[in-house]
Amino acid sequence: MTAPLDVIASDANPKIRRWRRLATDPRFVKKEGATLLEGAHLAESYFATGRPVKALLVAENANAEALYWAERYEAERGLVRRVIAAGLWQTLSPVEHGVGIQLEIPVPTARVGESVRTADILYLDGVQDAGNVGTLIRTAVAAGFRTIVGSPKTAGFYTPKVLRAGMGAHFGATLVENCPIETLLADYRGTVLAADARGGEDLFAADDYAKGPVCWILGAEGPGVSEEALAKTDRRFYIPIEAACESLNVGAAAAVCLFDTRRRRQESQGR
Amino acid sequence: MTAPLDVIASDANPKIRRWRRLATDPRFVKKEGATLLEGAHLAESYFATGRPVKALLVAENANAEALYWAERYEAERGLVRRVIAAGLWQTLSPVEHGVGIQLEIPVPTARVGESVRTADILYLDGVQDAGNVGTLIRTAVAAGFRTIVGSPKTAGFYTPKVLRAGMGAHFGATLVENCPIETLLADYRGTVLAADARGGEDLFAADDYAKGPVCWILGAEGPGVSEEALAKTDRRFYIPIEAACESLNVGAAAAVCLFDTRRRRQESQGR
Repeated sequence: MTAPLDVIASDANPKIRRWRRLATDPRFVKKEGATLLEGAHLAESYFATGRPVKALLVAENANAEALYWAERYEAERGLVRRVIAAGLWQTLSPVEHGVGIQLEIPVPTARVGESVRTADILYLDGVQDAGNVGTLIRTAVAAGFRTIVGSPKTAGFYTPKVLRAGMGAHFGATLVENCPIETLLADYRGTVLAADARGGEDLFAADDYAKGPVCWILGAEGPGVSEEALAKTDRRFYIPIEAACESLNVGAAAAVCLFDTRRRRQESQGR
Repeated sequence: MTAPLDVIASDANPKIRRWRRLATDPRFVKKEGATLLEGAHLAESYFATGRPVKALLVAENANAEALYWAERYEAERGLVRRVIAAGLWQTLSPVEHGVGIQLEIPVPTARVGESVRTADILYLDGVQDAGNVGTLIRTAVAAGFRTIVGSPKTAGFYTPKVLRAGMGAHFGATLVENCPIETLLADYRGTVLAADARGGEDLFAADDYAKGPVCWILGAEGPGVSEEALAKTDRRFYIPIEAACESLNVGAAAAVCLFDTRRRRQESQGR
């Protein structure tokens, strides 16, 4: 028998107010060094990392999958759940029909260190859309680019929305936010590549660029890669799209570029 | 001097009620055969097609770019703008900070016809997320796949959200909604390919699959390509992602597959 749990139902509860700010205000996430992780899939991925959890939030109407993970966090990580009334939960959740579990976790901090000098890197240059940033992190890790670095104008990597779109890829990557291109590349030993719709070499026709470590730079849709970043670039590529189209979504462009690198390496290993 | 225009400010106005349903209810879009196109970029793309417009909606606080296009639609297409109060506009717009122009347009209808038999096709098998569907249409057209077909369970192609994510790609494509795979492939003369994380051939290592027309089938994240569609498939491919990752976002997976086809054709033409 479990003792009945208090249900938090008041909007004025200071914990609720704090979680709502974490859910909705990217600057507060940065200031607090904490964020919310939503859903059973992320709860499962995060459990496997063994990393710390600050609080376990469960909706009063959580489904069976959410309750399964809540019980495991309680039994194996010594947490006590905070049960939140269904109406209030809606105001804390980044999705409309969530399963009813969130974790408050500390935001890991990483800096450009020794290992980054010879890593394959994805550098996001002013990508502001949170959904795009999460998908980019997921795509990069899948392509084998485990170091992802954001420029000062790029959206934060640890907001609930970005975490959700990342689908757990965050926990298998080294993520550095708020990093100027000069800082990243100061001691970099690889080749710096930019994806730029305005010109350069045809990505598919270009001779091999993927022998050593590479740092791919992708910019926001519209402005593209900044002049500042282009100045640091060794080679500039365009994706040969149909003439009638203006451009690709940044997530699609990154998928094409990063997997072109992966294919070239796979082919050169096969030879 | 232009005569002052009436500003629609009442939530009870029957036109407003109709536009709000078009903005928010995908089934209403289907039932009415009409939709809303938001923003200056889409207004510009659509203008170039010369296709019909049913109504011109302008926010009371529209910006200069929106007003430029409103004026051109009035002067060159004989429309009269409906000016809508700013607060009311928010309830009709798929974006929070829109520029203040929308067009009501008839939804074009296309069926699987003669030309589809030898076309390069992207078939979306149960892809329900509107943002993903719009991006997929954009990526497909950029890769040269101008026929995009949706299964009955796939999100409608013409809701305001899908149109917005499509960034004008809709108007350069043949789009067929609500089409079972058997209907699409009844007389198809090309090779049917499926992207399936569960197995098949390594996309990059596979021998050439791109000589004739191809129909790529992509499924929803999670369930993947349906058994029904796999039964119609000639070749099944997986994208060689890192072992630690579960899968790619469907938009990223499509970008990799469709541009791999494009690259192979470009290389075989170059030989």
